[in-house]
Amino acid sequence: MKRSFIREILESIDEHTISFAGGLPNEALFPTKLIQQSANNVLENSKVLQYSLSNGLKSLREKIAERYCKEGFETHTENILITTGSQQAMYIIAKYFEHKKITIEEPSYLGAMNIFKLNKLEMLPVNLEHDGVDIKKFQESLQESKLAYLIPDFQNPYSSTYSKVKRNSVAYVVKQHDAYLIEDSPYSELYFDKKHKSISSMIPENSFHLGSFSKTLAPSLRIGWIRASVELIKSLMMIKESIDLHSCGLSQAILNDFLSDEEIYEKHLETIRNDYKDKMEYFATSLEEILPEFKFEKPKGGMFIYGSLSNIDTKKLVYEALKKKVVFVPGSEFYTDKPFCNEIRFNYTHSSKEEIKVGLERLKTLLNKA
Amino acid sequence: MKRSFIREILESIDEHTISFAGGLPNEALFPTKLIQQSANNVLENSKVLQYSLSNGLKSLREKIAERYCKEGFETHTENILITTGSQQAMYIIAKYFEHKKITIEEPSYLGAMNIFKLNKLEMLPVNLEHDGVDIKKFQESLQESKLAYLIPDFQNPYSSTYSKVKRNSVAYVVKQHDAYLIEDSPYSELYFDKKHKSISSMIPENSFHLGSFSKTLAPSLRIGWIRASVELIKSLMMIKESIDLHSCGLSQAILNDFLSDEEIYEKHLETIRNDYKDKMEYFATSLEEILPEFKFEKPKGGMFIYGSLSNIDTKKLVYEALKKKVVFVPGSEFYTDKPFCNEIRFNYTHSSKEEIKVGLERLKTLLNKA
Repeated sequence: MKRSFIREILESIDEHTISFAGGLPNEALFPTKLIQQSANNVLENSKVLQYSLSNGLKSLREKIAERYCKEGFETHTENILITTGSQQAMYIIAKYFEHKKITIEEPSYLGAMNIFKLNKLEMLPVNLEHDGVDIKKFQESLQESKLAYLIPDFQNPYSSTYSKVKRNSVAYVVKQHDAYLIEDSPYSELYFDKKHKSISSMIPENSFHLGSFSKTLAPSLRIGWIRASVELIKSLMMIKESIDLHSCGLSQAILNDFLSDEEIYEKHLETIRNDYKDKMEYFATSLEEILPEFKFEKPKGGMFIYGSLSNIDTKKLVYEALKKKVVFVPGSEFYTDKPFCNEIRFNYTHSSKEEIKVGLERLKTLLNKA
Repeated sequence: MKRSFIREILESIDEHTISFAGGLPNEALFPTKLIQQSANNVLENSKVLQYSLSNGLKSLREKIAERYCKEGFETHTENILITTGSQQAMYIIAKYFEHKKITIEEPSYLGAMNIFKLNKLEMLPVNLEHDGVDIKKFQESLQESKLAYLIPDFQNPYSSTYSKVKRNSVAYVVKQHDAYLIEDSPYSELYFDKKHKSISSMIPENSFHLGSFSKTLAPSLRIGWIRASVELIKSLMMIKESIDLHSCGLSQAILNDFLSDEEIYEKHLETIRNDYKDKMEYFATSLEEILPEFKFEKPKGGMFIYGSLSNIDTKKLVYEALKKKVVFVPGSEFYTDKPFCNEIRFNYTHSSKEEIKVGLERLKTLLNKA
C-alpha cells in the first residue's frame, strides 16, 4: 500500500513552503474562542472524562438527526453512529464489506482507496464527468459490485457536483440492483449557491450517508458520523467498538455544547462559505492570469480546484515544485492506475491571498523552464 | 461476533444498578480542574484544532519515550505511535497480522479477543496461572503461532501478575522462536507495591508494548500508544492513517500540556494507586465477610478481583443479578469456549464503599436463594 501522498507531504514540508496540497480548512476561521468556552463548560463535570457509549453521545446524535430531518430526510437518533472522523466511517463500512467489489468514481479520494485496498475490496472505477459519473457505465459496474462509493458534492479531488438528473439516476440504479451506496459528504455544507439534495435521502435503506465536522468546524476533534438504517448501524457498531471502543468523549461533548445554539453554527457556516467562495474566485482568477495553460472548471463549493496542464507529468513536476517551496497534489494519486497524468488538485482554502499569488508565481517559473 | 458483554451492560443498566462490571476508573479522582486548565491553555492557539500528523503529536511522543528511558528501556520518539486508546493499538496490530495465528492467555481481555476474531486471527489459548502463563504450553503454542498477546501486569480479567522468572522465560521463548509479543499494559502504573519490569524491555525488536492514558488519566480522551521498533511503527502507521488519519488532536495537546509538569502526574498516579489499593482491600474484606464462598487471590494492582463460586453458572447468575440491580462480568466472557463457568470478575475501582457493601449484599440474597 502506498501511503497518502498528501500526508507524506504534510510531514516533509517546512514552514517556508506554500502548500496547495492538503484539504486543510482555513484555521483563521476556526471558532476557537467558542470551542474554548464549550470545553470549559463541559469540563465542569468530571463525567465527561469517563468512558461512554460506542454509538456516541446521545444528545449529539439527536442534533445530527434533527439536521437531516430539517432537510426533509427523516432520520432518528438510532440511525446515527458517531465515528472518529468520516475517515473511520469509511474504514468501518469497508471492513463490513471486506473482500467484496466496489464501484468508485475515477478520480477518487485517495484515503478511501487506501481503505478499500487494506480491506481487500476490488475497486471498479467509473469515469467521473463534470455532472457526475457516466451513468451507463455506473449501471454496468454496479450490476457486478452491488456497492458504490461516491462523493456527489464538490468531489475530492475532481471538484465536480452531481446534477439533479444524475442524482436521480444513481438512486434509481442502486435501488434497482438492491445495492448499497456509500455517499461521502464532508463538503456538502460548503456550497457557494445552494445545498444539494443527498442521493441517500432517496434510498434511505440502501445507503450510508457520511458526514463530518472536520471541514465545517475543526478537524482535530476527529468527529464524523454515519447515517444508515437501524439494522446496518447495529452491525457497524460492533466493528466500531472493536476499533476504538468509542470516539473521543471530550470532542463529542464540546461539539454537543457548541451546537446547542444552532444560530451560532449557521452563522459560522455562512462565514466559511463566503470566505471559501471568495478564495476560490481569487484562486481561479490568479490561475487564469498566472498559469493560463491550466484548464479547469470553477467548483460550486468545497475546497479544491482540479484541472490539467497540456503535456506535463505532474507527478514529476511536484518534486521540482517542492524544491521551489510550493506544493500541490498530482492527479496520478487519485487514480487506481495512471502512469502518466497531467492533472493537478489545488486546495484554495488554506493559503492566504498573498500566498496564492506567490505560490502560483513559483509554479510559473518552473513551467517556463520545462 | 458477540458484542462485548461489558459494553452491552453499560448501555442497558440504569442509575440504580450497582455495577462491578466495566473497567471504569473512579471519576472522582479525575484531575478535571487541571485538564480544564490544560484545555484552556492549548485552545489559546487555533492550530490545535487543525489536522495533525498520523503518528501523533511529537512532543507527546517525546514525553512517552522519556518515561520508558527513565525505566531503563531505551526508547526514541520514533518508537512511539499514538493511537485512539490502546484498543485501537490492538486493532492496528491485529490488522497487520490478519489471518495468522496468535497465542493468548486464557482467560483474556474480551475486547482483544473480539479484535482477533474480526481480523481472522486464529486464537491458541494457553492456561493462565497466578504467576503467568504455563511456560511449557506457551512454548509449544508459540512454535506454531510465532505471535503472542499477553497482559503481564494485573491481568484483565484474571488480576494475576507475572513473576520475574516467567517474564524472563517468556522473553527467552519469544526471542528463541523469532516471534512477536504484544504486551498489553494499561494497568502497569496502577501497582500497589512496585512497578514490574516489562517483558518488552528484554526483547525490544520482537515486541509491541501498549500503553494508555485511559486508566491513569481519563478514558474519554481516547489516547493510547504503541512502543515498537522503528520499522514496525512505520508499517503500523500506514494502517493507523487509513483508520482515522490521526487520533484526537485536542486530546493529545491537552495531555501534552498536562504532562509538562511531571510532578503533577506522578502525584496523581500516587493518589489513584492509594485509592485503588484501599478499595481493593475493602472489596476483598467485604467479599470474605459477605460472600465467603467466593474464592479469589488478592491482586497486586489494577482494577479487578477475579475468583470463582463452587458450582454456580455465573452467566445465568448475572441475569438474575441485573434484576436485583447489581452487575458483574461472568467469567465465560473471557474464554474462547467455556459453556459452563463458575467464575466472576469484579471491578473495585468505580463503586463507592457503600455501593460495594450494598452490591455484595444483593448478590448474597441471590446466592442464598440459589
